[in-house]
Amino acid sequence: MIELYELAGADPALRFSPYCWRTRMALAHKGLEARFIPSHFSDRDALPGAPDNTRVPVLVDAGRTLWDSTDIAFYLEAHYPNAPSLFGGAGGEAHARFIIAWADMTLVPALLPLLAADIYAILAPKDRAYFRETREKRLGCTLEEAARRESLLPTLHATLAPLRAIVSRQPFLGGEEPSYADYAVFGVFQWARCVSTLALVPPSDPVASWLDIMLDLFDGYARKARVAG
Amino acid sequence: MIELYELAGADPALRFSPYCWRTRMALAHKGLEARFIPSHFSDRDALPGAPDNTRVPVLVDAGRTLWDSTDIAFYLEAHYPNAPSLFGGAGGEAHARFIIAWADMTLVPALLPLLAADIYAILAPKDRAYFRETREKRLGCTLEEAARRESLLPTLHATLAPLRAIVSRQPFLGGEEPSYADYAVFGVFQWARCVSTLALVPPSDPVASWLDIMLDLFDGYARKARVAG
Repeated sequence: MIELYELAGADPALRFSPYCWRTRMALAHKGLEARFIPSHFSDRDALPGAPDNTRVPVLVDAGRTLWDSTDIAFYLEAHYPNAPSLFGGAGGEAHARFIIAWADMTLVPALLPLLAADIYAILAPKDRAYFRETREKRLGCTLEEAARRESLLPTLHATLAPLRAIVSRQPFLGGEEPSYADYAVFGVFQWARCVSTLALVPPSDPVASWLDIMLDLFDGYARKARVAG
Repeated sequence: MIELYELAGADPALRFSPYCWRTRMALAHKGLEARFIPSHFSDRDALPGAPDNTRVPVLVDAGRTLWDSTDIAFYLEAHYPNAPSLFGGAGGEAHARFIIAWADMTLVPALLPLLAADIYAILAPKDRAYFRETREKRLGCTLEEAARRESLLPTLHATLAPLRAIVSRQPFLGGEEPSYADYAVFGVFQWARCVSTLALVPPSDPVASWLDIMLDLFDGYARKARVAG
């Protein structure tokens, strides 16, 4: 059976990594069962593939070890071609890479300051010093200061404009059916949902409706996930 | 022959609309010849399709009139299926819509303040009052004040992060070959190139290398275009 190593909080059932959620949704899309193994920032040297890899998710399938959620998605697409496609062909694969990059480089930075203090609170105690040090360096301020920036929600609202435009006109980024592009973006929101009770988008926002549908997929798979608090 | 109505400056050979450049590149990609007809903001009621449509580009092909550059691209893909594909299949079409929306809703707003005063300078005199009024309303300041905002270039640099990530790892947004996603984003840079001498990206930026390759496509088609000054 496929094994997926993923990040957990102090509560080992709290699995909140945006990148691991991408892989979880991709596995569900392909109808693949997996064993999910909790890991922590401070356990990284024990991950399969370490020391070259020190990041989750790590996927182990039939003796192969893969890391990097994007590489894992392309691996699943190539090695399980008879299951529903994650990308919808060659053009879909190429263009999905931009959407993944947007989620990583534009959406994650827009959310990290809003979430960083909440993430700190749910981490395993042994992970906290590492997280505070690395994230405060990235944010340029303390975790607590970052969360209080008043401009963050209007900035996030503006950042979401292209996503809002698409899900206002078609059900999913993938068109009539969800694709890995949906999972790449949804993973970031699921990260927020797992660690924080902050309302990121108002209920009237088409992005909220899309998120609701994403939470319903696969018999409410992501909706049933353990959340903090 | 296909006819394309597009925006021109005071110099009718200066064709600078980002949306019209998308269509120009799509026509070149499909190997389709066209007659390009200059238009101005103040001529909009004379466009084919008016009064329902008052925006360029307008494409007239075999008795059909289409507007909206995205609709035109999907029309060309559907009606010229034997020419090289603009999207690379169904997944490519769905995901390209996000990239187009990103170009429209994130990249254009990042560039408009930088370019607005330069655009004003090359417009037909009859178009200037309209442009100043509508764009100053959108920008919340005068065209001249907008151009002097010191934070604009760093903001643009950050905005380009996902594009930079992709063209650092593959030749085009479309993969090994350019797709309409490339043209959608390139059109915005060609808009800048036609009206302004401002260096938007440093030569060392992978985005600059991608732009250079885009300018070389179709025997240097976009590079040969008339520019201001």
